[in-house]
Amino acid sequence: RIKASGLKLRFCTNETQATRENFVKKLQGMGFDISVAEVTAPAPAACRILKERSLRPHLLVHNDLVPEFAEIDKANPNCVVIGDAAENFTYANLNEAFRVLIGMEKPVLISLGRGRYYKETDGLKLDVGAYMKALEYACDVQAEVVGKPAKMFFESALAEMGVPPEQAIMIGDDIVNDVGGAQRCGMRALQVRTGKYRPCDENHPHVKPDAYVKDLAEAVDVILQHL
Amino acid sequence: RIKASGLKLRFCTNETQATRENFVKKLQGMGFDISVAEVTAPAPAACRILKERSLRPHLLVHNDLVPEFAEIDKANPNCVVIGDAAENFTYANLNEAFRVLIGMEKPVLISLGRGRYYKETDGLKLDVGAYMKALEYACDVQAEVVGKPAKMFFESALAEMGVPPEQAIMIGDDIVNDVGGAQRCGMRALQVRTGKYRPCDENHPHVKPDAYVKDLAEAVDVILQHL
Repeated sequence: RIKASGLKLRFCTNETQATRENFVKKLQGMGFDISVAEVTAPAPAACRILKERSLRPHLLVHNDLVPEFAEIDKANPNCVVIGDAAENFTYANLNEAFRVLIGMEKPVLISLGRGRYYKETDGLKLDVGAYMKALEYACDVQAEVVGKPAKMFFESALAEMGVPPEQAIMIGDDIVNDVGGAQRCGMRALQVRTGKYRPCDENHPHVKPDAYVKDLAEAVDVILQHL
Repeated sequence: RIKASGLKLRFCTNETQATRENFVKKLQGMGFDISVAEVTAPAPAACRILKERSLRPHLLVHNDLVPEFAEIDKANPNCVVIGDAAENFTYANLNEAFRVLIGMEKPVLISLGRGRYYKETDGLKLDVGAYMKALEYACDVQAEVVGKPAKMFFESALAEMGVPPEQAIMIGDDIVNDVGGAQRCGMRALQVRTGKYRPCDENHPHVKPDAYVKDLAEAVDVILQHL
């Protein structure tokens, strides 16, 4: 319905447990009209940074994300890239990433998101942000965050659409990463009351969405009504 | 030589990979005149706090430390105690400790130290402080640190000796945890140029020991000379 109305559309995800190909397949299976070219995701954004700055990463990421870094030189690493590695967050792997970092004259840590935790069918899980904090503290370094809520991430999605922030609206379930990040970029933002949404989000000390909607369908209703 | 001179002596350790019994056995094997009663360590300090505040811990600690908590009620936990769990720092165990914390109305996290990393024969390892930071971030909570450099830890060692801080001197290899912690308590502190000591410690932005000594033997020489 968004596309049919003539509006430009971009899917911004912090998904780092799968390649964009697999992410898109999953959404297509749910009935979404979506292609890889319409997705803004942290791993490709990180690859752009790695190339620009001639960085060779040591990867601490999910196995299924590794193909996104296929074209990147990973020999003799001079930075660490951390994503939501899930089962790959072992004691041995964390120590290894730490040793690579602490061995650098000026450690460079790139984090694919700064999420605190997320919910899976078998319960809550620590997200990449928690492990990022562990490495930041151990190495006395500040990670460069790629992905929501980084300003640069929203800006690149806007640039890909060729739309200025004041003409764009973000729809998301995450009060900080989706709503807060988009608003700091000059966009408006709707929060859906589904997914990661929690009632206490409505009392968030710093972030207030421009409006709440019941779900994604109502978000589309509201946007099309205001055209 | 310290004991023979009539000075009071106390061993302050952040060791949380073994009970005091095993720690003392190791030092006795190296020829030190030391008994369990002379050791101030984080686990017993944590046990005092747990009892005082009726806290029932979920333990994320090294297997060899568990006996220190033998007398503590651990059913239906209302806090998390984290130590240097080493191989017990698995993805599953970290998620479990996180779920216990995030499930509390007001999460209570007690950390046995805040060390960043340490060296073992097979390389550098992340210390408890890094994992503490991960849980702090995920749960938006501040850990209560037991052990060096916490002021309360040094104060209880002093109380056990019955000595005021201005009449006590700390000997240690760690510029922040030993020297800085003791000085903030009103004690003087010597740094030995062995163990964890690194030359760059001598340019530390905040902490300056009262003197440097070559090793533990020279520390004793210096102290006895000034009696």
